[in-house]
Amino acid sequence: MNVRLADIVEQLGGERVGSPDLLLQGLASLASAEPEHIGFVTGDKHRAAMRESRAGALIVPPSLAEEAGRQAALIVTPQPYLYYARLTRWWQQRLRATDSTGVHPSAFVAADARLAAGVSVGPFAVVEAGVVLAEGVVLGAHCVVEAGAQVGAGSRISPHVTIGARCIVGARAIIHSGTVIGADGFGFAPHEGRWEKIAQLGAVRIGDEVEIGANCTIDRGALDDTVIEDGVKLDNLIHIAHNVQVGAHTAMAGCAAVAGSARIGRHCTIGGDAKILGHLELADHVHISACSVVTRSISQPGTYTGFFPIDDNAAWEKNAASLRQLNKLRERVRALEKNQSGTTE
Amino acid sequence: MNVRLADIVEQLGGERVGSPDLLLQGLASLASAEPEHIGFVTGDKHRAAMRESRAGALIVPPSLAEEAGRQAALIVTPQPYLYYARLTRWWQQRLRATDSTGVHPSAFVAADARLAAGVSVGPFAVVEAGVVLAEGVVLGAHCVVEAGAQVGAGSRISPHVTIGARCIVGARAIIHSGTVIGADGFGFAPHEGRWEKIAQLGAVRIGDEVEIGANCTIDRGALDDTVIEDGVKLDNLIHIAHNVQVGAHTAMAGCAAVAGSARIGRHCTIGGDAKILGHLELADHVHISACSVVTRSISQPGTYTGFFPIDDNAAWEKNAASLRQLNKLRERVRALEKNQSGTTE
Amino acid sequence: MNVRLADIVEQLGGERVGSPDLLLQGLASLASAEPEHIGFVTGDKHRAAMRESRAGALIVPPSLAEEAGRQAALIVTPQPYLYYARLTRWWQQRLRATDSTGVHPSAFVAADARLAAGVSVGPFAVVEAGVVLAEGVVLGAHCVVEAGAQVGAGSRISPHVTIGARCIVGARAIIHSGTVIGADGFGFAPHEGRWEKIAQLGAVRIGDEVEIGANCTIDRGALDDTVIEDGVKLDNLIHIAHNVQVGAHTAMAGCAAVAGSARIGRHCTIGGDAKILGHLELADHVHISACSVVTRSISQPGTYTGFFPIDDNAAWEKNAASLRQLNKLRERVRALEKNQSGTTE
Repeated sequence: MNVRLADIVEQLGGERVGSPDLLLQGLASLASAEPEHIGFVTGDKHRAAMRESRAGALIVPPSLAEEAGRQAALIVTPQPYLYYARLTRWWQQRLRATDSTGVHPSAFVAADARLAAGVSVGPFAVVEAGVVLAEGVVLGAHCVVEAGAQVGAGSRISPHVTIGARCIVGARAIIHSGTVIGADGFGFAPHEGRWEKIAQLGAVRIGDEVEIGANCTIDRGALDDTVIEDGVKLDNLIHIAHNVQVGAHTAMAGCAAVAGSARIGRHCTIGGDAKILGHLELADHVHISACSVVTRSISQPGTYTGFFPIDDNAAWEKNAASLRQLNKLRERVRALEKNQSGTTE
Repeated sequence: MNVRLADIVEQLGGERVGSPDLLLQGLASLASAEPEHIGFVTGDKHRAAMRESRAGALIVPPSLAEEAGRQAALIVTPQPYLYYARLTRWWQQRLRATDSTGVHPSAFVAADARLAAGVSVGPFAVVEAGVVLAEGVVLGAHCVVEAGAQVGAGSRISPHVTIGARCIVGARAIIHSGTVIGADGFGFAPHEGRWEKIAQLGAVRIGDEVEIGANCTIDRGALDDTVIEDGVKLDNLIHIAHNVQVGAHTAMAGCAAVAGSARIGRHCTIGGDAKILGHLELADHVHISACSVVTRSISQPGTYTGFFPIDDNAAWEKNAASLRQLNKLRERVRALEKNQSGTTE
Repeated sequence: MNVRLADIVEQLGGERVGSPDLLLQGLASLASAEPEHIGFVTGDKHRAAMRESRAGALIVPPSLAEEAGRQAALIVTPQPYLYYARLTRWWQQRLRATDSTGVHPSAFVAADARLAAGVSVGPFAVVEAGVVLAEGVVLGAHCVVEAGAQVGAGSRISPHVTIGARCIVGARAIIHSGTVIGADGFGFAPHEGRWEKIAQLGAVRIGDEVEIGANCTIDRGALDDTVIEDGVKLDNLIHIAHNVQVGAHTAMAGCAAVAGSARIGRHCTIGGDAKILGHLELADHVHISACSVVTRSISQPGTYTGFFPIDDNAAWEKNAASLRQLNKLRERVRALEKNQSGTTE
């Protein structure tokens, strides 16, 4: 696909420097770009890479326009990263074959499911009784949407997704392959050394503009619903237990997990592999570092961290052994202090 | 669905206080209950929430009956949580459409597979040669049961589950979507800088009344089988490596993992994200806290823990840096002690 | 299946001790072997188990041949573990029903997909436009191979695998069930408190002889490709983020994860649940212990570790509390040292 530089600016804004007719074949990172590519530079930290880049066009902030203009055509914009994000989406839209709408003949759609205009249902998808797929939903091959579930307008569900009975996905969602929404929450009553299952009677409610990565699991609530609010972004292999609430515009990186009934605020970021224990509350704008374990509620915005620093194995072994004596070490220091204050008095 | 209070007590026992004809439309948490709901109170810790609840009926222990009786109809029982567990299951059974039995016409079932009475096979399920599905098995849409595998009576397999060749699932199991039973264990012999695959010739044997969450992986054994005993409950995204044995009635929370050939006792609990390294043995009644790494066998019942406590990021940075010098700090304290004992003598 | 001892040696080499006509029915671990089984002994650490084994034949190193020969027939070889690996594969090949080649009538294969000789496509598989499946590929039931993807000769893809558009899998790969290759990388530009999606325009390129476990996720690159080089072995539930490069013959155990744009060298081993943060570089021959978090690039080969040692819960609580005061403790020790050097001077 060839795109004129002027066409991009016309669609997405920014100030063009250089020929309007420059033809671009794709986006590329600064390091791998060739003259037929457009790259982006968010600020000074990319300056060295920019100088070595062969990109024919660059998206740059005003502060770098003069320097960058000596080596490439430009789109000058105050927010190059945001511009780049929008350009990737515009480019993808042009590349993507128009979704074939309609129900693939191999799909199984219950007679009373309601499919709005422009819905696409892929091969071997299963749409059970009472399901509602709103306008423009793209349901991938092999998806299973169980009885009474609903998917909002414009949502794209990748192949092999399971949406459980009565669960609700909002509009313009993106859900990647292998994700399971609405499996039973993990609830058992102990009784005479055995576990008696607590049937999970709630569902999952997911807001608008939510993206969920591949092979995630979002369990249905025990009585009330598990809730994912608008604009939440979840990476891959994330586990959201029953009755959790995730506030709007919160993002979680890969392998994060949230235990039952925890409530996470709005605009939080949860690093990769971070874990939130059950029944905790995190305020808005709380940031948890990767691989940290949250064991208490956090009421103040800020960044919180907790993991063992890596070291060469021999050093770790010694320090880990000392760590198992740390409380005793502290008592020994206290004794030393007491003695010293005695000797120095 | 409307249920009379007296009908519940007739089915599940307990002492009724209030009108037998009170109509209930569902179970609800104390906070969200309305007069048409029944809630539960396990003890004094729920007392404040109980007082504010609008629930029309409450399941309570005898100690709270008098107080609770002033605000709602009651079911009095010595174990309200257990009663609640049983009530959820009874309620779900009434809500659930009777499973349509029989094989969906789109499913692929090998000619020599043996399906007992009352078996239900969902759309696009694949049942290979020699498979045995016992009485009342519900096999969800898109499940794949490979050659020679067996599923015991009354087991419910959710959509998108894979049961590998020759694996055995016991009776009354519940397996949630996306779970893979019987993928190859991770076994390789190093040879001249490369990895030579060790074919995994064992299988997986799962006992009765086992529940396995969504997107778990339980690998087949190298030579012998991987074994999950009766009554084990696994949450989502759990990894059980080859040749592991999990003792009866042990429960593991989400994202836990057990490395190869580990043996876990009976009646253990493994917290979320806890990891058990390979070839270890855990005694019966061992409890591992969430996010802890088990690096040695544990022969004594008890609770074991090990993770870095979370802190605000600045404090963590300082403490983590000090931790990398901890062994040296210990030596410095030793030197101080030696010196001090010299100075004070 | 009965196999003569002489047939094994003829195929796989080694020195036979004992009757060529000894009939073997299978491989078994030393502990569970019966006289009709063959076991293996890699060295002295297995000596006690060997003495108690009832195996009819043993694979042993020369150093144990004399002793082992008193109890069983032998195959003597300098590398018993490697021999065992090869024997398992040979045995499996004989056990495995010949793969039925051809496209199952229920599969959906696009008209312009190119399937080479000897390709097998399982029930309900979906092969989209422009896909290339090379000679001898076995595509399992329910796999989805999206438009333009390619799979190399002899690769075996288990049921329920998703291979995204334009992704490339090399020759002789093994990919287990539930794995998702080519979901979108996790990329968003923050804008006014919301997340603007960055379309992921790259793909995934996987080399030859790669094995990937069950329920893994390997995301497509943002602009360039995510790359898994030849001979890499990944266990289950592993997350490889966008733009990661994993060097040839590196192995990762279950639940490991690599964040975006990290570059891992060749011949590394990454322990189970270990996490590599984004944009880091690991040299060749780096070994990361299980459950360790890599937060900085590592340029020297070696073994690196970092996790909190487990302890009984009461001890952990005290030490963890002290750890949160560790930096202060260090300052107190410094003060003691200063004072002591004052008092002792």
